[in-house]
Amino acid sequence: MNLDAAMAAAVEQSDGVKGRTYPNPPVGAVILDRDGEIAGVGATEPPGGPHAEILALRRAGERAVGGTAVVTLEPCNHFGRTPPCVDALLAAGVTDVAFAVADPNPVAAGGAARLAESGVRVHPGVLSDAVAGGPLREWLHKQRTGMPHVTWKFATSVDGRSAAADGTSQWITSEAARADVHRRRATADAIIVGTGTVFVDDPALTARRSDGSLADHQPLRVVVGMREISPDATVLNDDSRTMVIRTRDPHEVIKALSDRTDVLLEGGPTLAGAFLRAGVIDRILAYVAPILLGGPITAVDDVGVFSIAQAQRWRYDGVQPVGPDVLLSLTRN
Amino acid sequence: MNLDAAMAAAVEQSDGVKGRTYPNPPVGAVILDRDGEIAGVGATEPPGGPHAEILALRRAGERAVGGTAVVTLEPCNHFGRTPPCVDALLAAGVTDVAFAVADPNPVAAGGAARLAESGVRVHPGVLSDAVAGGPLREWLHKQRTGMPHVTWKFATSVDGRSAAADGTSQWITSEAARADVHRRRATADAIIVGTGTVFVDDPALTARRSDGSLADHQPLRVVVGMREISPDATVLNDDSRTMVIRTRDPHEVIKALSDRTDVLLEGGPTLAGAFLRAGVIDRILAYVAPILLGGPITAVDDVGVFSIAQAQRWRYDGVQPVGPDVLLSLTRN
Ligand SMILES: NC(=O)c1ccc[n+]([C@@H]2O[C@H](COP(=O)([O-])OP(=O)(O)OC[C@H]3O[C@@H](n4cnc5c(N)ncnc54)[C@H](OP(=O)(O)O)[C@@H]3O)[C@@H](O)[C@H]2O)c1
Ligand SMILES: NC(=O)c1ccc[n+]([C@@H]2O[C@H](COP(=O)([O-])OP(=O)(O)OC[C@H]3O[C@@H](n4cnc5c(N)ncnc54)[C@H](OP(=O)(O)O)[C@@H]3O)[C@@H](O)[C@H]2O)c1
Repeated sequence: MNLDAAMAAAVEQSDGVKGRTYPNPPVGAVILDRDGEIAGVGATEPPGGPHAEILALRRAGERAVGGTAVVTLEPCNHFGRTPPCVDALLAAGVTDVAFAVADPNPVAAGGAARLAESGVRVHPGVLSDAVAGGPLREWLHKQRTGMPHVTWKFATSVDGRSAAADGTSQWITSEAARADVHRRRATADAIIVGTGTVFVDDPALTARRSDGSLADHQPLRVVVGMREISPDATVLNDDSRTMVIRTRDPHEVIKALSDRTDVLLEGGPTLAGAFLRAGVIDRILAYVAPILLGGPITAVDDVGVFSIAQAQRWRYDGVQPVGPDVLLSLTRN
Repeated sequence: MNLDAAMAAAVEQSDGVKGRTYPNPPVGAVILDRDGEIAGVGATEPPGGPHAEILALRRAGERAVGGTAVVTLEPCNHFGRTPPCVDALLAAGVTDVAFAVADPNPVAAGGAARLAESGVRVHPGVLSDAVAGGPLREWLHKQRTGMPHVTWKFATSVDGRSAAADGTSQWITSEAARADVHRRRATADAIIVGTGTVFVDDPALTARRSDGSLADHQPLRVVVGMREISPDATVLNDDSRTMVIRTRDPHEVIKALSDRTDVLLEGGPTLAGAFLRAGVIDRILAYVAPILLGGPITAVDDVGVFSIAQAQRWRYDGVQPVGPDVLLSLTRN
């Protein structure tokens, strides 16, 4: 197996733990034996538990000797709650270490250099774009900015409507698209709506499996706006915790969530517009159904643009089918 | 070269003549010699000129003997303005004939059966979906319904706007997307707008190359609406012919164009809504730019839907990047 294929396997490992490693990054690791066969895999355990490399080495056992460690993030070189992974890699006798993304954290970094000094062949940057834009995206953003990464997710018809003229919107997108949203909720740290959505839709805002049962991990639910919501609102039930933030200032909301990493904004049009105008959205996920609705209800109202020259300009970083729908992913330019 | 690859080459041939073969279908043909190498290619000439197979056979010459003819449409078996292609294929000594789509025209059909009776191995259905949904789509629609195939094309922001709040819309999409539209215009038979677009944008509605020069083939320009447009309107210049249809009834427009095959509807929102409500659109092409505009101007207004249960339901038959934009292609369900 070549390094790219092994890194893809490490990414798959990390995907399995996304949302459950906070404040640690969701890292995946694969150990190849000297013949290039997978000898062990691992992913970050919850804080206090072992890092991905340690688990993978443990599973590889003696087969790690003369082998290659393939990790999504540069192995750490410091004593945190656990000893440095670099020590474990050296002790295990791997001859090669590949990683996708350098550790931006100055305290943990330096792993690659120490490995090289110790005679290990280091292969940095393997699938770096896929990892930096994928499983480590939100964590890297947090490291860089100190702020959570905010994804605005919306469902829309191909003509940009988020509901029919009479306000009905269940459902615009397919079961497949809704299942995809629930998978994303299950790895997010928080999910935000405005009071308007609570009043109109009374959503649960939980992450559910296709059989309706609750996923293992539930994001914090956040309701934003000055109006008081009913104590009977479903969003206040016991399925997860809920934070009500009495403000209309997106920056205040982000600040209140500054200990989080991966935040989902789920609308509606008023709050989405406010967040877009404030410039606090890092990614847009548009689930576009192959339907036409027409009428007055659009997915977002005012984004602070008057003339075409002021258009908010983004960039696609992913276009993929989700069942009969299409998911457009956009990132800042 | 296998049959699929040869058919792909035949499709490429047919793409080169699309829009210039009316009332004949734009067919492509490839002759493989007995070693499977391309010996000749051809595409339908304007009416009166030879069919694709004949040109390809001519170019292959002696190399056709013992070879394979690969054609996008079943070879014809009747005397029209030209003699039957089946005769020419038999005379040329090919041992195999592959085609994508059977001829739906009862007069011209029967070619495959006659070839088989004469001892030729016939391979029907090669890349049939790609051809029936691609180069022959509009012609097949016309054969089936007697009506032109209508494509509604629009440019939109990811939030469904066709202009900024102040009405400015130049340009929502990229140069690459606009060049793609001009390529489509150059193969279309007619292009429709409402009087509203003529009043606001004063467009030329011509097919132009990227250097601004006029393409060889220009579609008929069609303006629909009760209001009189100015004799100075650019759409009335000498670059192509123009038809003004004083009606608000989409069916009347289609009827006036019933001798055409491939018709493009280019908006605006009022006319697009009227055509969608009338059910006369066969394909939607949405050029979606990675920008946000917000505001009141949407790509289509009223599509006759009040509640989500009445949504117009379509199906994606193509999703592809065009420069920085994404082109969503939808077809009727
Ligand atoms: N298609 C989708 O993806 C999607 C997703 C979610 C919702 N929706 C639909 O959206 C509709 C609800 O729309 P909505 O716009 O009322 O919901 P919303 O955006 O969730 O809530 C709007 C409320 O947010 C508060 N708010 C917070 N910050 C604000 C600011 N800076 N400016 C203005 N208001 C601010 C205001 O409440 P206070 O007055 O209390 O301050 C405002 O009324 C529902 O029909 C729902 O189905 C669609
Ligand atoms: N983004 C895009 O792809 C795109 C494409 C084209 C245009 N546009 C924009 O669209 C704007 C013009 O919008 P528009 O809606 O006025 O243009 P339009 O749809 O091209 O023209 C509207 C006119 O069409 C006539 N019409 C024909 N059948 C009708 C029917 N069944 N019902 C109602 N009217 C009918 C009416 O004219 P009469 O009153 O004369 O009968 C009506 O005023 C411009 O700003 C232009 O830039 C955008």
